Amino acid sequence: MSEVYAARRARLRERCHAGGSAAALVTRPANVRYLAGASPCGAVLLLARHEDILLCQSPPEDRPHEGRLDEALRVQVLSPSSGGDPAVAAAGLAQSQGADSLAVEEHHLTVARHRALASVAPRLRLTDLGNAVEQLRVVKDEEEISLLRIGAEIADQALGELLESILVGRTERHLALELERRLVDHGADGPAFPTSVATGPNAGRRGHRPTDRRVEEGDFLSVCLGASYRGYRCELGRTFVIGTSPADWQIQLYDLVFTAQRAGREALAPGVACRDVDRAARQVLEAAGFGEHLHPLTGHGVGLENDEDPQLSPSAMGKLDACVPVTIEPGVHIPGRGGVRIDDTLVVRPEADGGPELLTITTKELLAL
Amino acid sequence: MSEVYAARRARLRERCHAGGSAAALVTRPANVRYLAGASPCGAVLLLARHEDILLCQSPPEDRPHEGRLDEALRVQVLSPSSGGDPAVAAAGLAQSQGADSLAVEEHHLTVARHRALASVAPRLRLTDLGNAVEQLRVVKDEEEISLLRIGAEIADQALGELLESILVGRTERHLALELERRLVDHGADGPAFPTSVATGPNAGRRGHRPTDRRVEEGDFLSVCLGASYRGYRCELGRTFVIGTSPADWQIQLYDLVFTAQRAGREALAPGVACRDVDRAARQVLEAAGFGEHLHPLTGHGVGLENDEDPQLSPSAMGKLDACVPVTIEPGVHIPGRGGVRIDDTLVVRPEADGGPELLTITTKELLAL
Repeated sequence: MSEVYAARRARLRERCHAGGSAAALVTRPANVRYLAGASPCGAVLLLARHEDILLCQSPPEDRPHEGRLDEALRVQVLSPSSGGDPAVAAAGLAQSQGADSLAVEEHHLTVARHRALASVAPRLRLTDLGNAVEQLRVVKDEEEISLLRIGAEIADQALGELLESILVGRTERHLALELERRLVDHGADGPAFPTSVATGPNAGRRGHRPTDRRVEEGDFLSVCLGASYRGYRCELGRTFVIGTSPADWQIQLYDLVFTAQRAGREALAPGVACRDVDRAARQVLEAAGFGEHLHPLTGHGVGLENDEDPQLSPSAMGKLDACVPVTIEPGVHIPGRGGVRIDDTLVVRPEADGGPELLTITTKELLAL
Repeated sequence: MSEVYAARRARLRERCHAGGSAAALVTRPANVRYLAGASPCGAVLLLARHEDILLCQSPPEDRPHEGRLDEALRVQVLSPSSGGDPAVAAAGLAQSQGADSLAVEEHHLTVARHRALASVAPRLRLTDLGNAVEQLRVVKDEEEISLLRIGAEIADQALGELLESILVGRTERHLALELERRLVDHGADGPAFPTSVATGPNAGRRGHRPTDRRVEEGDFLSVCLGASYRGYRCELGRTFVIGTSPADWQIQLYDLVFTAQRAGREALAPGVACRDVDRAARQVLEAAGFGEHLHPLTGHGVGLENDEDPQLSPSAMGKLDACVPVTIEPGVHIPGRGGVRIDDTLVVRPEADGGPELLTITTKELLAL
């Protein structure tokens, strides 16, 4: 694996040099992990003139769930008594090695921390690395996709088991905790994000945080969960009806969201504009009169974080590439009544390879539980 | 409760005016919650010239577990299509109201966000609010302490129940998940921080993240957990021995850490220097030859966050006040063998009130389970 990380760092270094910076400092944990294999607590990565150095406050532990640190990387542990910030130490190091500029992640460093860097290395010109690492992360290699695929299998299993149990009378919070336990049972590092379980009038709300409301007969039940597997985070969302016979409005609403979600999935292809994928799903809901309260995003990239680029929204710029995993997750929520969300993780693939690869395979038929 | 929040904001406003700023922008979520009663996702609080305004991206929901928003507060919801940052909107608003300066939390705002504020409000001088809100938060009122007390009871209950079950053969990760489930069962919002369960050679490591190692006969087992109750986060840590008869080295190590922890607890009083509390505990461990690898902190404040001021460390400045809740959590870890940590949450009280109030009452006898 070491060559993978070295290759990623080499690509970042090229971008930095093209941008006029001799050295770069990566502080955002997911970016450190992408370039170094792991991101021990508080660690920062310095791409210096002649070598790459991971600086951290304590010796990194070997924790396979949280990634394996690239062995080829030099690790420098700050003395515990220094109480120091590894980013500040990195800036001092870069200056002492004769660098004249250092690109930093201005979207991650706080103003106070940035000032501490400038103060310890006054001869260093601090420039903005911007989202350079995030952009490298958008297109995944097959190893990364296979980790997402395993995570999706785990999420499918956890959800499938929950559906076999009795749901009526249990609270949203307990169902969410049980799903998270099952994710870990099946080998996840943990949940990819806080598991959302929404019942009755809460159903269909994006990012709903579980309450003490209990599942009742006739409810919509919507669930959104994901497994983090070796750091990679998939997402799976489904909506069910509790009881034997869904009401007509439930069937109609479900069919509508299903149609929108399918349109979004089918729009996925390399070269397609992100906003066109969004529009494919959104216009179905708009045409049915639900345009006003829709969430700004129909979907987003996933990977080492749950909410990566690209964004699938009306204002999104850019086009999809092959090997970009995204969610397609339209939903409708009717205040006071509830609603429907359906959420899959898929990988953009060319038609010659069979089109978009669906990672989350739990059925999207409307199940009455 | 509304008066409590208004009074807190009035104190902050005084500090700002004393510092020469007409207006202040609070962005750090725990600080927003302290001053507004709740911190809806992404919300920021503007203390403007004539009124206080909470700006957020979507209408705040009523979620009692996450605090109740002060009803006296004006709430301004950004239009969803703006896609905007409430902090940027707040800066624009402050400028349009004629403020000439705005104090911001430079230790929380990123460089990129700070620049966006400056760009939308070029006539506004941005100053640093520093840790003004964090400092207000150090001394708790009795309502806050009662929430910590309930959280501590919940943590005690969850741990007590776990100890009644069979532990041998179960993994650290499963024990941690079970503790977290029990916290929620007993009414916690959720865990105050990721629950730590450490067995055998891992035992005694501060902040150890649970692995798939299984509990074995003869192990030390150390557990650190906390309940978040209405946002307030207590901390409880204990170490046990698995099996009927602890080994001599285990008894000796336990007695040593117990003695250090007691010394720390007994040092707590209003007016005592934070570093003297640290020294009381630390010197016991140093005298026994464990000085080298000790953690820089013997304890820390708790409240809306798990790791607040004051810090109890050799380099800490300042003295304790009454009504400050802190942890006392010395520990020793011997690489390859394991170790002991004991962690209580206590409230500093004057001797006339009975001295330090212990919130976490689980026994500190060495239990063999």
